[in-house]
Parts: sequence; C-alpha cells; structure tokens
Amino acid sequence: MAKSVFYHAGCSVCVSAEHDIVNLIGLDKVEIVHLGQDRNRIAEAETKGVKSVPALVTPDGNVLHINFGASMTDVKG
Amino acid sequence: MAKSVFYHAGCSVCVSAEHDIVNLIGLDKVEIVHLGQDRNRIAEAETKGVKSVPALVTPDGNVLHINFGASMTDVKG
Repeated sequence: MAKSVFYHAGCSVCVSAEHDIVNLIGLDKVEIVHLGQDRNRIAEAETKGVKSVPALVTPDGNVLHINFGASMTDVKG
Repeated sequence: MAKSVFYHAGCSVCVSAEHDIVNLIGLDKVEIVHLGQDRNRIAEAETKGVKSVPALVTPDGNVLHINFGASMTDVKG
C-alpha cells in the first residue's frame, strides 16, 4: 500500500500532530518530511496542494491540513 | 484500545475527510459522530476542545482540526 506523507516544519503544533498521526496510523504507513530540513521538497508539497503545515497527504492524494502550525509562505521564509 | 472520535456536520469537507480518516485509521478504531443529527453531543465536542468540524479527537484527548468545514457556531446554528 502506498504511504501517506506527513509534512511539517518542526513547530510545536507540528510535533504534537506528528505524534498523534503516527500513533493513529502507524509509523510504517506514513513518511515524515521535515520541510525546514528537506527544503528541496517544499515545491513537491505545494504541488500536492499543501497550504500550511502540519499536513497529511493520503495515498489517494487528498490533503488533510491538521490544525495550523505555519503557512507555506512562513516555511519558505 | 480507546477509539478516536470523528466529529462532523455532514458538509462536503466533512464527508471527504471522514472517508480519508476511516481509510487511514480503520472504521473499527474511530467513532463517527454527526453533530447535525446528534445535537445533544455538541456540548461534549466543545468540552473536548473542538472548535470547528471536521475534527478528530484522539484516544489521548488531543484535538486534530482537519481542514475546515464549519465552525461550532455554524453547527449550533
């Protein structure tokens, strides 16, 4: 099965949501991407429709924006 | 294991998120509550910290607001 991708930027809201999502879905079913560290994946996230972090992109390509940590504009700095 | 609770109000954003969450977590691990139909559970949702729907409350009590369908004020009408 294709994995979901969880995009975050290291903020406290992101880290809290990351723990919840990993607990709910299972670490084997989700790839964690830290956009503050993997900056070359910011464009990929935006192409998928990610407007803010933290966000979870499902295997179907749907974007679930979870709470609100930072906008992609903030992430890009 | 305690179940998560997914609160929604029947809006299109809610229904889409519901399908995604059920696919990700599994229907056996989440209780679905339609606040438009189960209006006596609105107070329960607010007590848990739900500010808008759709929202998922984890077994740990954390509230994940997923995308944005409607505020609780809208739900209460």
